Amino acid sequence: MEAVEKLVQKNGSKIFLIVLDGLGGLPVREGKTELEVAKTPNLDALAKKSALGMHVPVDYGITPGSGPGHLGLFGYDPLKYEIGRGILEALGLGLEVRSTDIAIRGNYATVEYVNGKPVVKDRRAGRIPTEENRRITKKIQESIREIDGVEVIIAPGMEHRTAIVLRFPEPLEEGSDRINDTDPQEVGKEPLEPVGETPQAQKVAQVVKKFIDRVAEVLKDEPKANYLLLRGFAQKPNIPTMEERFGLRSCCIAVYPMYKGLASLVGMDIIEFEGNDLKSQIETLKRVKESYDFFFVHVKKTDSYGEDGNWEGKVSVIEDFDKHLPKFLELKPDVLAITGDHSTPSVLKGHSWHPVPLLIHSPYVLGGTAERFTERECVKGEIGIIPAKKIINLLLANSLRLKKFGA
Amino acid sequence: MEAVEKLVQKNGSKIFLIVLDGLGGLPVREGKTELEVAKTPNLDALAKKSALGMHVPVDYGITPGSGPGHLGLFGYDPLKYEIGRGILEALGLGLEVRSTDIAIRGNYATVEYVNGKPVVKDRRAGRIPTEENRRITKKIQESIREIDGVEVIIAPGMEHRTAIVLRFPEPLEEGSDRINDTDPQEVGKEPLEPVGETPQAQKVAQVVKKFIDRVAEVLKDEPKANYLLLRGFAQKPNIPTMEERFGLRSCCIAVYPMYKGLASLVGMDIIEFEGNDLKSQIETLKRVKESYDFFFVHVKKTDSYGEDGNWEGKVSVIEDFDKHLPKFLELKPDVLAITGDHSTPSVLKGHSWHPVPLLIHSPYVLGGTAERFTERECVKGEIGIIPAKKIINLLLANSLRLKKFGA
Repeated sequence: MEAVEKLVQKNGSKIFLIVLDGLGGLPVREGKTELEVAKTPNLDALAKKSALGMHVPVDYGITPGSGPGHLGLFGYDPLKYEIGRGILEALGLGLEVRSTDIAIRGNYATVEYVNGKPVVKDRRAGRIPTEENRRITKKIQESIREIDGVEVIIAPGMEHRTAIVLRFPEPLEEGSDRINDTDPQEVGKEPLEPVGETPQAQKVAQVVKKFIDRVAEVLKDEPKANYLLLRGFAQKPNIPTMEERFGLRSCCIAVYPMYKGLASLVGMDIIEFEGNDLKSQIETLKRVKESYDFFFVHVKKTDSYGEDGNWEGKVSVIEDFDKHLPKFLELKPDVLAITGDHSTPSVLKGHSWHPVPLLIHSPYVLGGTAERFTERECVKGEIGIIPAKKIINLLLANSLRLKKFGA
Repeated sequence: MEAVEKLVQKNGSKIFLIVLDGLGGLPVREGKTELEVAKTPNLDALAKKSALGMHVPVDYGITPGSGPGHLGLFGYDPLKYEIGRGILEALGLGLEVRSTDIAIRGNYATVEYVNGKPVVKDRRAGRIPTEENRRITKKIQESIREIDGVEVIIAPGMEHRTAIVLRFPEPLEEGSDRINDTDPQEVGKEPLEPVGETPQAQKVAQVVKKFIDRVAEVLKDEPKANYLLLRGFAQKPNIPTMEERFGLRSCCIAVYPMYKGLASLVGMDIIEFEGNDLKSQIETLKRVKESYDFFFVHVKKTDSYGEDGNWEGKVSVIEDFDKHLPKFLELKPDVLAITGDHSTPSVLKGHSWHPVPLLIHSPYVLGGTAERFTERECVKGEIGIIPAKKIINLLLANSLRLKKFGA
């Protein structure tokens, strides 16, 4: 238990954490970053009277995936709580994962049978169209509902990708997911047998083998996707909830399944709502404000445009957020934090290791250290450059939810 | 042993650490903090040629009590060395605590006897006047000098509060203080029996029981304060001295008992002197300068006024310190550090989690990063925002008391 957890006290305060995914950037035009190019009068006004800083999501120089990026923001050390690939894939495709589950990434593949044995000809089944994936996945789901009392759930992803959840009748022991990938990583080879490293994983591996064989049977007449290779076996990590650790009744107001899934891993309630834009998120926030203490609002497109290398697109998402900011402020959070889960500089077309701008507004900040909410201004702020996992300490402190340490 | 301890070398240098208790603040007038409002020409001149930064006393977001706040400044991790409540209360009331001692917080209470058993009617004995407390405490001390060979020392605090030290003939084993509070926390209930969690604590608990009964006998005819509830049993933490760790012969020039007590916990010599102001502290510093390496000078009133929400008072203490600063400089310390043990913003009327301004002057600093010694200027300084426990490294380094690490 960390020091901060022992000091938690409850009160009626409301904490908003707004995550602009992949917020941080690098110079894109005339030496200015996406945040610097964007016209953000509301963010600028708020920045002048807020605490500013930068956060390091995982460690210096480390580029985080979405999982570690968000865990840090929620107050969890991403190096301590690792989320398996299968879990992330399942969450990203909207599957729920429970303590009874093994989650797996699946790739449709093309095999040829030689002496009755499958030999991989194409590890991605020629990257079949997503539409074809949906048809095939539906066919599998309709044919295979359960194996030996284990429920089977399969969801289609993009192109050749799927996620599978094997739901056992009882919660699984730790180590039940220690099973090797079946993808041989090379064409011309047989898929590998799934083998469990531990007795509890061996039980799971038996079900997996039967699942692979039954899928092969269902797909046997498909011209391309006639086999399923499995990777990233993972069970739900054993993570104490935000309410347990910080006394925060927490909820997630996000559009994309991945982020809802990550929030659910730390015990947040996932609020369902109509619409997929900031307006609908603000309305939802207003609707549920009395029922929670901590509100995680996720904005995806800053990251999406960054990944595409489309800096104008990223700028426009930032500007759109700026227009909605007054509506968030009207809801009068006691503490408002605005940041990203990592940087996604358009020039890198991907996530990066760069520290991420962080703004915290409450009645108890110095403020007055900056003119705008940008990378270069945040570097000069009163928060300094801190590990992401410490942000929660500041949010709790600024909402007066921490008792004094020692006398 | 930490890396820095292995590198220590001695020389004749003098290090002054001046602690303005609760120094850091928040905006109080026209967006300016107490330090920004204060007229401090001498501090400003020094700040221009000093290393500036901020320190985090315990951890981000954590509001320290005086104990953890000072331990950090002395180079001790406050999360590693915890000081029990009883110890702090005893130190605060001027009692010495030794390795043979159990220190306890006492509250005078009113009980009613039902079938011969005490039942709590008022946990604070109607908050009796401090004068009455003094009379009663004296009566107890005169009646009870020892129990089973254990010396009993009791000191009056404010209103209903006292501190008790039970001094055993031999140093106590670790875990001897693991005894529950006897305060039932509710009226209408019997006081709890003191029970030891460990065999060594059980021995202590036997003495405690007899002490409680004898106090009840002494107080039986008091109209209000006719019982004593005990809390915060604590023994002296096992802390290596500053001389052992850093090779520094250290002394404390403080007015208030609490800070002398904290200094004594890390092995500082407590210098007694006439007077209670900066002038007398400077004279004392001059007098003992040749006998020590490290001088801890404590100024209390910045914190006291902050706690009262009296920002004008806090400003006046800062300005008074500024007037005396040239006298400190005349003593030509090799390294001079000025900081606080924590922030006490007048607007919060209490200690807070905010990082604390830090100034270090020596011939080996960059300087030139700031115009003044304020929170906002210190944020931009060459030291950055560092954990308090690392300040000692900088003081040792700037006094050339650390050898090179590695070849």
